[in-house]
Amino acid sequence: MILTGQNFIGSERTGMGRNTFRAVNPATGDLLPISFYEATEAEVGSAVLKAEAAFQEYKEQSSEDRALFLEAIGDELWALGDELIERCMSETALPAARLNGERMRTTNQLKMFASLVREGSWVDARIDTAIPDRQPLPRPDIRQMQVPLGPVGIFGASNFPLAFSVAGGDTASALAAGCPVVVKAHPLHPGTSEMVAQAIVSAANKTGMPDGVFSLVQGTSVEVGMAIVLHPRITAVGFTGSFRGGKALFDAANQRNTPIPVFAEMGSSNPIFLLPGAVSARGEGLASGLVGSLNMGVGQFCTNPGLVIANESTETSQLLEAMGDLVSKTASGTMLSEGIKDNYEAGVNRLTSFPGVEIVSEGISGQGKNQVPSKIFKTKATDFLGQSGLEEEVFGPSTLSVIAEGKDQMLEVARKMQGHLTATIHGTDADLEEYKDLIHILERKVGRLLFNGYPTGVEVGQAMVHGGPYPATTAPQSTSVGTGAIKRFVRPVCYQDFPQASLPLALRDHNPLNIWRLINGELKKK
Amino acid sequence: MILTGQNFIGSERTGMGRNTFRAVNPATGDLLPISFYEATEAEVGSAVLKAEAAFQEYKEQSSEDRALFLEAIGDELWALGDELIERCMSETALPAARLNGERMRTTNQLKMFASLVREGSWVDARIDTAIPDRQPLPRPDIRQMQVPLGPVGIFGASNFPLAFSVAGGDTASALAAGCPVVVKAHPLHPGTSEMVAQAIVSAANKTGMPDGVFSLVQGTSVEVGMAIVLHPRITAVGFTGSFRGGKALFDAANQRNTPIPVFAEMGSSNPIFLLPGAVSARGEGLASGLVGSLNMGVGQFCTNPGLVIANESTETSQLLEAMGDLVSKTASGTMLSEGIKDNYEAGVNRLTSFPGVEIVSEGISGQGKNQVPSKIFKTKATDFLGQSGLEEEVFGPSTLSVIAEGKDQMLEVARKMQGHLTATIHGTDADLEEYKDLIHILERKVGRLLFNGYPTGVEVGQAMVHGGPYPATTAPQSTSVGTGAIKRFVRPVCYQDFPQASLPLALRDHNPLNIWRLINGELKKK
Repeated sequence: MILTGQNFIGSERTGMGRNTFRAVNPATGDLLPISFYEATEAEVGSAVLKAEAAFQEYKEQSSEDRALFLEAIGDELWALGDELIERCMSETALPAARLNGERMRTTNQLKMFASLVREGSWVDARIDTAIPDRQPLPRPDIRQMQVPLGPVGIFGASNFPLAFSVAGGDTASALAAGCPVVVKAHPLHPGTSEMVAQAIVSAANKTGMPDGVFSLVQGTSVEVGMAIVLHPRITAVGFTGSFRGGKALFDAANQRNTPIPVFAEMGSSNPIFLLPGAVSARGEGLASGLVGSLNMGVGQFCTNPGLVIANESTETSQLLEAMGDLVSKTASGTMLSEGIKDNYEAGVNRLTSFPGVEIVSEGISGQGKNQVPSKIFKTKATDFLGQSGLEEEVFGPSTLSVIAEGKDQMLEVARKMQGHLTATIHGTDADLEEYKDLIHILERKVGRLLFNGYPTGVEVGQAMVHGGPYPATTAPQSTSVGTGAIKRFVRPVCYQDFPQASLPLALRDHNPLNIWRLINGELKKK
Repeated sequence: MILTGQNFIGSERTGMGRNTFRAVNPATGDLLPISFYEATEAEVGSAVLKAEAAFQEYKEQSSEDRALFLEAIGDELWALGDELIERCMSETALPAARLNGERMRTTNQLKMFASLVREGSWVDARIDTAIPDRQPLPRPDIRQMQVPLGPVGIFGASNFPLAFSVAGGDTASALAAGCPVVVKAHPLHPGTSEMVAQAIVSAANKTGMPDGVFSLVQGTSVEVGMAIVLHPRITAVGFTGSFRGGKALFDAANQRNTPIPVFAEMGSSNPIFLLPGAVSARGEGLASGLVGSLNMGVGQFCTNPGLVIANESTETSQLLEAMGDLVSKTASGTMLSEGIKDNYEAGVNRLTSFPGVEIVSEGISGQGKNQVPSKIFKTKATDFLGQSGLEEEVFGPSTLSVIAEGKDQMLEVARKMQGHLTATIHGTDADLEEYKDLIHILERKVGRLLFNGYPTGVEVGQAMVHGGPYPATTAPQSTSVGTGAIKRFVRPVCYQDFPQASLPLALRDHNPLNIWRLINGELKKK
C-alpha cells in the first residue's frame, strides 16, 4: 500500500493544507517516509458535512448490514498484512508481537460490536401499550428506544495505535450505534492511521455504506481537533489521552452554543492496596506481579499501576526490596516519542522534588534513543496525605509506594483519593473481612475494582468498565471499553400513538427484529 | 400541621439565616402566613454533609426497605389531607382538582419507582465468567452493575408544586437509585414544600432510613442553589425550570474542580405540525384540541404547544379562525406569580415586535390579580425562517402559528428548529407517507414524538422520554420522567475476580435477588 499523506474526506483523499509533518521513529530519531498534510478547517468542515449527509442513510442500514460493515473493517485490517505492523513498529517502537496482539484485539472488538448490533436488544426497546378506558384519562401507546446521536468526533490515542485509535473502540462503538465518525489521527502514528483509514473506507465501499460514514483528518496542531469539536454538526466526542487534552476538549464542548458530551478517558494512577495478609503470604509473587504490570508496554498503559499502598512492616519492606531487585535488573524500554519520554522524566523529577519521597530502585539505563528505565519510589502516607500532587499520574514505568502506619491511615489515603480508572486490592479472605470499608471507599473512586490481580490488561466484553470518576474521565457514567461503550453515542426517543408503519422496526408489535423488549414492564422476546 | 418556616437539615429543623421571605397568594397578591428562613451556606453545607454521612448506609438498604420508604412517602403525602391542597392552592392559584390529581401522580410515581427497585433488574447486572484456559491469556471473571453516585442536589419546579417538586420525579428517582437528596424548595411554594418535606422525613423515620437521606433548604436567592451545586460532596443535580436557571447551574457545575452532571429540563416550544390531510379532514377537532392543550394549566406546562406549523390553504385559514373563536371565548387564568405573569407579557410583547407577526385572537381579559388571556399569533414561514428568536418558548398560554408555502418550506422550518421536549404530527396515513422526511428531521430534535395527539400530559411509565436535545435540556441522553429517570443518578462499576462474599448481592452466582442479568452475553433470570 502506498501512503499518500492525505486526509480522507469520506472516500475522497485531499491534502489542501500548506502545513505538512512527518512521523519519527522513536527508536532512532529518524524521520519516516511521507509527509502528511495537516487538515485545514475547510477539510474538517467537509468531513463533518459528509458525515451529516450520510447520517440518515447510515442509521437506516439494517442491523445485519451494519454488522457486516464492522466485520469487513476487521477483514481489511488483516488484509493489510505485515505492512501495517511494520509501519506501526517504526512509528511507535512497539514490538511486532504486541502490535499483532493489538490488531487481534481491535478486530475482536469490531466483531463484538457486530454481534451486539446483530442481536439487537442493545436499543433498550420499551413499550407501554395504550389503555383506552383508563380513568380519569386514557393511557396512550408509548414506545421508546435508543437512537444514534449523529456525527461523532473521535481522537486516536498515542499508546494504542490500533485498539484505541482509528478503528479502535470509540470508532467501533460509534459506528455500531449508527453514528458516522470523523477521526482525528494521533500525530505520532499518521502512517498507521492512513493505512487503517484506507481499510475502513474500503470496508465501507465493499459493504455499500454511504460515503461520509467515516473520515480521517491528520494534524499535529490543536486547531484540527478543535475544528471537529466546535463544528455545529458534531454531536459527541470520544477521546483517550492526557488530562490536559481531554479537559480542553471538554471545556470547549461545554462552551459551544449547543454543548455536546465529551467522553474523555484521561488516565489514572490505578492505586494498588496490599493488605497485610497478602503481603505476608505471597510477598514474592506480588513483587514480580507488580513489576511485570509496571513494565508492560514501557508503562504506557492507562491502567499502569502508579501507586502501591501498604502498611509498614518487615514484610512490606521485604516486598519493596524484592520489587527493587527486579526493577534494577529491568532493561530500559523505548517510549513512544521524545515528548512522552521528556514528560516521563519531568514527572519522575517532579516526584522526587516532594519532601519525603525517596527512590527505591531504578532499572538499567539504556543507550538507545528515547529509552527510559523503570523507577520505584517510596514515601510515608503522612507525607502523601500532607501534600497534594503525589497522586498524579506519571505516564511511564514509575510507581510510588505509599507506606501507611496501619489500617486507619491506609483508609485515609483511600478516602483522599480522586477518581481513577481502577483500584486493586490484594488480600486474603481475612484481610477483606477486616478491610471491608476499603471496598466501599474505593467503589466511589473508580470504574473497575480488582481483587488479587493487576490492572493492566483491559478485557473487552459485556461487563467491562473502562472509565471512572473525574479526573479519570469527563464522563463517569460511561465506559469506553466493552459493549456498554455504545451507550455513549445514543439517546432515548419515544413515539406516542404512532402508526405501526411509521415506527422503527424495533418497536413494532410483532417484534420483527426478535429482540428483548420491556413490554408493560415485563422483559420479553416476542 | 403547623408550618415553622425552617429548613430540614436531615430530620433537624433549623432557621439560622437572618433573611426571611413569605409566600404570596397569586390570586390576591396577599402575603401568606409564616416567614421562611432563607438557608445559609452553613445550613446547606450541613445538609450535604449529612447526606454524605447517610450515603453508605442508605445505599446498603435492601431493595425491599428502599421500596417501603418510597411507598411510605406516598402514604404520608395522603395523610397530609386537604391541608396540603389548601396551602398549595393559596401558593399557586392552581385548582383543587388539579392539585389532587397531581398528588395522585406524585404518589403513583413513588410507587412506580418502588416497584422498579423491588423488581431489581434496573441495575443492569452483567457477568462475564472467567475462562482460565483461554489462549494467549486467561479471561478473568468480570461483573458489572450500576451503583448510585452519591448525594444529589434537586431543584423544585414552580409549575408542578408536587409532581416536579420536593417529592417529585427527581427526588423519587434519586432516592430509588440509592442517592440521598438535598432539595432546594421553589420559593413560590415554600409552605407546600415544608409540608411535603415533613412527609418525607416522617416516612424516613418510620421506615428506619438514616438521618440525612433527605434535606430541604428554602430560599429565594441564587446563592442557596449555587451552594448546593458547588458543594464538593454533591455528585449530580436535577432541575426543572427556565433556560436561564438551568444553564447557570450547568455552567457552574462544569467549572467546579470536579465537574458533575446537571440534568436540567429547561422547557420547549413543542412544535405541532398539521399536515394537509388532517387539516382538511378534521379541522374543527384540531382547533378545539389545540386550544384545549394551549389553555391547560394557564399554559404553564413544559410541554405547552407554543408553535403550530401548517401549510397555507383555505382549510388552514378556517382552522386558525376556529382556534381564534375558541380563544376569544376563553376566560383569563391566574398565573403562578406576578413574575411569571410579567414574563408572559414580556414574551408576547417580544413576539409582536417581530416584523411579520400578527395577533390572531386573544382571550377575555380578566380583572383579577395576575390573570392573563390566552393569545394566538401567526406569521409566515418566510418570516419565521428569516429571523431568529421566534422559536423561543413563551411560558404561558400563547401559540405562534407558522404558515408555510408548502411541504418544502414546512420541512425547512423543521430543519431550522433547535432541541425541544416534544414534536407532534397531525396527519392521515397518506400525509405520513408523503411527509416521511418530517419524522426523520424531528427525531433529531426532540425526546418525544407524538402522532395525532397533544403534548401536554406526560405519561409516567417505562417508555416515557421527557427530555430532548439542548436547549430543551442540558442532558439529551436522559429522561426526567419514567423509570429511565433513575439512570441519571448511577454509574457502572465492575468487579474483577472478586470473591463471592465481597460482591454486591446483584452480582453473586446464585442470583439472590432473582433479577435479569446478562451472563456471558445472554439475558437470564437464574
